Amino acid sequence: MSTLFLRTLRDDPSDAEVPSHRLLVRAGYIRRVAPGGFAWLPLGYRVLRNIERVVREEMDATGAQEVHFPALLPREPYEATGRWTEYGDNIFRLKDRRDADHLLAPTHEEMFTLLVKDLYSSYKDLPLSLYQIQTKYRDEARPRAGLLRVREFVMKDSYSFDVDDAGLDRSYAAHREAYIRIFDRLGLDYVIVSAMSGAMGGSKSEEFLTPTPVGEDTFVRSPGGYAANVEAVRITPPEPIPFDGLPDAHVEDTPDTPTIDTLVEVAQKLFPDEGYTAAGTLKNVVVTLVHPDGAREPLIIGIPGDREVDAKRLEAQVAPAEVEPFSEFDKHPELVKGYIGPQALGAESASGIRYLVDPRVVPGSRWITGANEPGRHVFDLVAGRDFGWDGVIEAAEVLPGDPAPDGSGPLELARGVEMGHIFQLGRKYAEALGLQVLDENGKLVTVTMGSYGVGVSRAVAAIAESTHDELGLCWPRGIAPADVHVVATGKDSAVFEAADRLARELVDAGLTVLYDDRPKVSPGVKFKDAELLGMPVIVTVGRGLEQGVIELRDRATGEREEVPVAGAATRILAAARG
Amino acid sequence: MSTLFLRTLRDDPSDAEVPSHRLLVRAGYIRRVAPGGFAWLPLGYRVLRNIERVVREEMDATGAQEVHFPALLPREPYEATGRWTEYGDNIFRLKDRRDADHLLAPTHEEMFTLLVKDLYSSYKDLPLSLYQIQTKYRDEARPRAGLLRVREFVMKDSYSFDVDDAGLDRSYAAHREAYIRIFDRLGLDYVIVSAMSGAMGGSKSEEFLTPTPVGEDTFVRSPGGYAANVEAVRITPPEPIPFDGLPDAHVEDTPDTPTIDTLVEVAQKLFPDEGYTAAGTLKNVVVTLVHPDGAREPLIIGIPGDREVDAKRLEAQVAPAEVEPFSEFDKHPELVKGYIGPQALGAESASGIRYLVDPRVVPGSRWITGANEPGRHVFDLVAGRDFGWDGVIEAAEVLPGDPAPDGSGPLELARGVEMGHIFQLGRKYAEALGLQVLDENGKLVTVTMGSYGVGVSRAVAAIAESTHDELGLCWPRGIAPADVHVVATGKDSAVFEAADRLARELVDAGLTVLYDDRPKVSPGVKFKDAELLGMPVIVTVGRGLEQGVIELRDRATGEREEVPVAGAATRILAAARG
Repeated sequence: MSTLFLRTLRDDPSDAEVPSHRLLVRAGYIRRVAPGGFAWLPLGYRVLRNIERVVREEMDATGAQEVHFPALLPREPYEATGRWTEYGDNIFRLKDRRDADHLLAPTHEEMFTLLVKDLYSSYKDLPLSLYQIQTKYRDEARPRAGLLRVREFVMKDSYSFDVDDAGLDRSYAAHREAYIRIFDRLGLDYVIVSAMSGAMGGSKSEEFLTPTPVGEDTFVRSPGGYAANVEAVRITPPEPIPFDGLPDAHVEDTPDTPTIDTLVEVAQKLFPDEGYTAAGTLKNVVVTLVHPDGAREPLIIGIPGDREVDAKRLEAQVAPAEVEPFSEFDKHPELVKGYIGPQALGAESASGIRYLVDPRVVPGSRWITGANEPGRHVFDLVAGRDFGWDGVIEAAEVLPGDPAPDGSGPLELARGVEMGHIFQLGRKYAEALGLQVLDENGKLVTVTMGSYGVGVSRAVAAIAESTHDELGLCWPRGIAPADVHVVATGKDSAVFEAADRLARELVDAGLTVLYDDRPKVSPGVKFKDAELLGMPVIVTVGRGLEQGVIELRDRATGEREEVPVAGAATRILAAARG
Repeated sequence: MSTLFLRTLRDDPSDAEVPSHRLLVRAGYIRRVAPGGFAWLPLGYRVLRNIERVVREEMDATGAQEVHFPALLPREPYEATGRWTEYGDNIFRLKDRRDADHLLAPTHEEMFTLLVKDLYSSYKDLPLSLYQIQTKYRDEARPRAGLLRVREFVMKDSYSFDVDDAGLDRSYAAHREAYIRIFDRLGLDYVIVSAMSGAMGGSKSEEFLTPTPVGEDTFVRSPGGYAANVEAVRITPPEPIPFDGLPDAHVEDTPDTPTIDTLVEVAQKLFPDEGYTAAGTLKNVVVTLVHPDGAREPLIIGIPGDREVDAKRLEAQVAPAEVEPFSEFDKHPELVKGYIGPQALGAESASGIRYLVDPRVVPGSRWITGANEPGRHVFDLVAGRDFGWDGVIEAAEVLPGDPAPDGSGPLELARGVEMGHIFQLGRKYAEALGLQVLDENGKLVTVTMGSYGVGVSRAVAAIAESTHDELGLCWPRGIAPADVHVVATGKDSAVFEAADRLARELVDAGLTVLYDDRPKVSPGVKFKDAELLGMPVIVTVGRGLEQGVIELRDRATGEREEVPVAGAATRILAAARG
């Protein structure tokens, strides 16, 4: 440590919002050098490489083969699959000196597809899984939370190639198992949740989320084992209700009811026997979709009044379009703000605005909703009888206590960080780029693919997030920058000699050792640094040496143990190997 | 090999100009996926990582510490040192979604300087050497020669920080020694040549060149041990000659002498006793300098007529300006094409064009040169008496047989690939970015720096270039993708069982093994592939097995040896370790 490129900081960096960011900067693991860009300092880079090693070993164990692509790629392949446009502002684009368009790749589906097409042509060549551990780029609108959301990051991405669906299922399962082993070895808690495919198109998809309050993803789980990210939750719609015997719709004066709460209050006063709640009202929310080509389209979403639109669920449904607030009420006089009713909505209506409803809006369901006049609402408006819609959309928020779609009990909501994603792409990319092979009968068939990602640099933050304590970082064995932190305290040269000797012995035995040999630093500062830096085993050589003992401490448990200096290496070796 | 992602190709790729490119593609090590961009396939990526390992080990052994920076960086630090502009078209620039300028870094001097400034403040923290093995970008005008000139590549770049010049000398020497060890371990021939600093500014600088006819760099060496790249050659100018007694200048009719050869012929006829040669003529070459800010400036260079202007030497002298042909003779009627004479040249002259001359143009030297009239030349025009100049420039080509500047004999010219560069930056970057530390007396001093590079991905090509033979690649031990290539030939299941067993035994003994277990491939194809792929030791398990022997072959020497199958592993282990 007397020569290590390291400065530990006493104060939190002013821009750090989350513990991992705060501690990784304070402990000298990373340093911000650009918006959403960090330099890895020596200790941090060791952690990153340790994680890479684990990922590589487990990928190799599945038979996946490592390759490596450029990050800077030409536009054409991404144009062929539509992603050049779909990614919108989220990718970095640039031109070379000949004015040719390029991008910094966020993922490499196209390139892997083309590579396999380039070299392989028969079902005998498959199955095949290829992976890379590579630097990726995203033009994040809001880089934040240290390493959790940055613009340049390291990912392991892999791609499987199979001749049929059963093969894809096997490749998918192999990745799923490898990911379980990887995250177990990294010491990360994780929940495997069903996931939307997002902008990728395709079928089966799961995410590995590490639960943490600082996570950007919301997921749900039930006591019976259901787990999904909120985007993927599909509610079970109620049964349709026969129209026979349903009351007629009737418009009522409901002055001063611009909000659902005020409306429910008035409705309960008007019809005390009906037991009206917000869930019986139908709220029509106007948004603007911005399509990748820049086209803007208003969209109205009808959802029960007891729920808000969930921005992420909505975005997942309308991707690759992006969602913006609607601000053109002046161009649409038929939309009476606060009193919009479905009678005026739909592609076929006077407004011509597309109208999508929540799955709970089944035929025969009765609603209180806007009458398209200020201060008036319509009651007993029956879906399918009194109004129609252009489609159904799962954009309403999921609330704690909602039933799990599979009947496994009430849902709870939690936050997490996405650490892995496994995904059955199917034939989308192979079709777009013409990846076909000859099958057993000599017939050309389109290959089916999977894509699988692990956030490697993000894992550094996620592990820090889930293992740190109030004293500092606390790395799992095998991931820490060093196995053992040897601290020499005091001014006695015998102490430094003994510590030197011990450190050397441990290195010879195959351990990596961080050795605090700083001559003029107080024991207090050294102990604080050792806690902050977070090696799993801390060995103090100090005053005890006169009695022939050194102290062994487990960083995670805090357990201390005095060990005779003779033979200490053997004891430390055992402790370091856990 | 039955599952390895590999297709060896019988035919050379049509765009391959050099052996390493041809063979690396044919052997399935790399695959072109973009202009100047290659994917690393499994075998190629292993070679790359082996080279990285060697570089890392040797850098670590010097005490240098590994860090890692983003490639995508903001404009500001590069603006502060002027490099944002100086790099011209040679770097990739892009804007993020907020329209902020960024670049893909070609090297990281600025960022390392700022990082050290950020964390360190005292002479006690120095010396310090930091390095990274990182992906770099250059917008090459003409990507070529496979991995030798690409737009995205892996480099090890390191930077040393010292408080004084003696410290910089030590850091420089430590890097020089480490580079010698690295290139020795990589099995690369190299010549250490004196080098220009190029666009970097600074003092001492050497390059490690691997001699190869496909190299883009030209260097010179003398029998006495002088070695320099051509840009760095500084000729020893002749002594000035007293003007006393020199003849007066006289203009002669020299019809039809637009070239030096025709002029010399006429001159010899006119004055048979003078012994005129091309070396006695003064040729004035007009070029256009394009400065980084886009400004264009004509420049005239006067050199002896027996030499051409060397584009690289000229560019090194005028950098960061770039050189283009001059095409505006119509705007400069004073320049009579083919008959330009120095009397009309110079910043102070009527033309106002800057005039730089070769160091051989010393005061008192007599020249035949243009008379600024078609068909007429001036003779005995004496430098310093009859014409002046604005400065001296080393832009004339170096010719074989020219004397070495240090008197160590005649120079020979050769071509090479730059594999390493060590360079005393001095205080340029530290001054531009304010990197100062307190010295022993509590006084702020500016840090002095070195910068040092190794072309890691380029080394894959350079090693292939210098070790291949007519059969294929031929990797040194320790760099090859596998230590041993086990080939099972024939259809006999006993052969495959024995080969399986042997391969497993070798893996258990710690070797990496490429095992050709393909069941339906002919021995001829397998042998050809083994030669092409180039593992250092090839073991054939085949017909000999009935007699209890297998064949061991050294790929480089071609030596064959029959070895009893019992105990073969031990013999192979020895062979693999060299």
